[in-house]
Amino acid sequence: MEKVLSGMRPTGRLHIGHYFGALKNWVKLQDNYDCYYFIADWHALTTNFENPENIKELRREMLLDWLSVGIDINRSTLFIQSKNIYHAELFLLLSMITPVGWLERCPTYKELKTEITDRDLSCLGFLGYPVLQTADIIMYSAKYVPVGVDQLPHIEISREIVRRFHHLYGCDIFVEPEGLLTDVPKLLGLDGRKMSKSYGNAIMLTDDLKTVESNILKMVTDTNRKRRTDPGDPSVCPVFDYHKVFSLESERDEIVEGCKGAKIGCIDCKRILLKHIIEFLEPIQLKRKELEKEIEDIDQYLSNTQEKACIVAANMMEKVREVLKI
Amino acid sequence: MEKVLSGMRPTGRLHIGHYFGALKNWVKLQDNYDCYYFIADWHALTTNFENPENIKELRREMLLDWLSVGIDINRSTLFIQSKNIYHAELFLLLSMITPVGWLERCPTYKELKTEITDRDLSCLGFLGYPVLQTADIIMYSAKYVPVGVDQLPHIEISREIVRRFHHLYGCDIFVEPEGLLTDVPKLLGLDGRKMSKSYGNAIMLTDDLKTVESNILKMVTDTNRKRRTDPGDPSVCPVFDYHKVFSLESERDEIVEGCKGAKIGCIDCKRILLKHIIEFLEPIQLKRKELEKEIEDIDQYLSNTQEKACIVAANMMEKVREVLKI
Ligand code: SF4
Ligand code: SF4
Repeated sequence: MEKVLSGMRPTGRLHIGHYFGALKNWVKLQDNYDCYYFIADWHALTTNFENPENIKELRREMLLDWLSVGIDINRSTLFIQSKNIYHAELFLLLSMITPVGWLERCPTYKELKTEITDRDLSCLGFLGYPVLQTADIIMYSAKYVPVGVDQLPHIEISREIVRRFHHLYGCDIFVEPEGLLTDVPKLLGLDGRKMSKSYGNAIMLTDDLKTVESNILKMVTDTNRKRRTDPGDPSVCPVFDYHKVFSLESERDEIVEGCKGAKIGCIDCKRILLKHIIEFLEPIQLKRKELEKEIEDIDQYLSNTQEKACIVAANMMEKVREVLKI
Repeated sequence: MEKVLSGMRPTGRLHIGHYFGALKNWVKLQDNYDCYYFIADWHALTTNFENPENIKELRREMLLDWLSVGIDINRSTLFIQSKNIYHAELFLLLSMITPVGWLERCPTYKELKTEITDRDLSCLGFLGYPVLQTADIIMYSAKYVPVGVDQLPHIEISREIVRRFHHLYGCDIFVEPEGLLTDVPKLLGLDGRKMSKSYGNAIMLTDDLKTVESNILKMVTDTNRKRRTDPGDPSVCPVFDYHKVFSLESERDEIVEGCKGAKIGCIDCKRILLKHIIEFLEPIQLKRKELEKEIEDIDQYLSNTQEKACIVAANMMEKVREVLKI
């Protein structure tokens, strides 16, 4: 089986945007690939070194969410980046051969530097972030990395670093990774902005179902539909965007008809959505409760897969050192 | 005892310039400090990643030279950088908080980039070199780092990184290092250029004594002293520069007088120098022969001090991770 690798920064509890944007795909990939999923805690420091929250607790919360949606430790190799120190060694060695110009020209580097103004992105760690990411990927000979279109330039840098390394040292020890583009629905927040815990507009996987209900019922709809008797336009309604993710096509067709013809009210429409969201969240939350009881210490829980990852990495580093004659 | 740390890139066999420029001082420092001396093999890659020579062999040759001049494994902690992977972890973590601007403004960075044209200095590793050096130093709480004046800006960056780390994370776990300026004689090569093995103008610590003799006898002298009967000027004579290092002051006074008054010939003058160089080299070479027999495998030979260094580093990294809450 070919290898897939992906990581996520430890942000603590996840929301449904994380699920539909990444985790749902991760769960599916387990059927066809040898998957490596890791908690990218060092990466979290590249953009947020000034306020290190309690990363230990954030790691645990995130892992519980992964497991509760179906990431399977018996099939996938789950590990914590910072506990596999070889990533730092490979980062260091790759940094020796990576031109600064490649990194400065990276579109996400330039964009983030202009976009993000509330955090300090002037440091070497942030500049070198694609090099660390490359180390993460090629350490495990991962062939595929699930990415969004915006991350393709990073994969391109990884491929260039691999080619340069092979060329300089006359070897062929790494796999050139490829981006695995996945078409994911963009799920906006309850207020129509980007979904984010910090905006308070997210539906967390762990949200109390009563909270979910009141949040859904408060959601903005087509702002032109002022009265029940006004016809509405689902294509401009945030509630309908959620239906696209949670409801069946046949139901959606009915809603479109009912909304445009003013045959259903927004409350009815939201109730249908709510039913589906609860059907989605309930089993996840039940499973999470079990897991919370089972898993006290995630280091302990991950010990086997963490060790497996470390062994794979140690073997790769032996090859790297041999090639570098160091 | 306060700690001193210094490293040297593994360039293989060393010449007398290395001895008088650094090693002689290292040997002396052992009397008053707890010294950590390491083989900086990762650093070698920052400027020479394109042609990795057999670093293993270079490490052994260099270590044998260290030991033969009096570096004492029973007093100093000798280790190989690349075998203490914690340096890579600390490098990674410090890179998160080190502004790229500090590194770009470093005088040696700018100078080397313009001076060295035959090697590729455009890589992240070269830019980040002072950060790796900082990790090397502060890992062991070294208070002093023997340096030349040109390296003081690097120590200044290390101090700034330490202060920034302490400030950001409200802690005080590192020692702010200080440069230990040592006044060393500048020993030029046999041809008056910078002494370097690659120029073929060096007296290696391991040079066959016959070779040393013929090299000294061939040395350029005061070029204005064409005949034995011409008076000479020691202050412009490369041979006299060597006398400054190898001969006693009383002898030097005689030479100055003899040369200026055309009372001694250049061959006589060189013979006096030669005698001293041989007196200097002979015991070193004898000791080296012993060591070569004793030390087959330097990893084995260094195992105790390497382990000690790793333990000190592991303890420091625990503190670092705790402070970063990672
Ligand atoms: S009926 Fe549904 S789709 Fe139409 S405006 Fe109301 S909430 Fe939106
Ligand atoms: S006598 Fe000695 S110091 Fe004077 S020119 Fe000759 S070699 Fe130089």
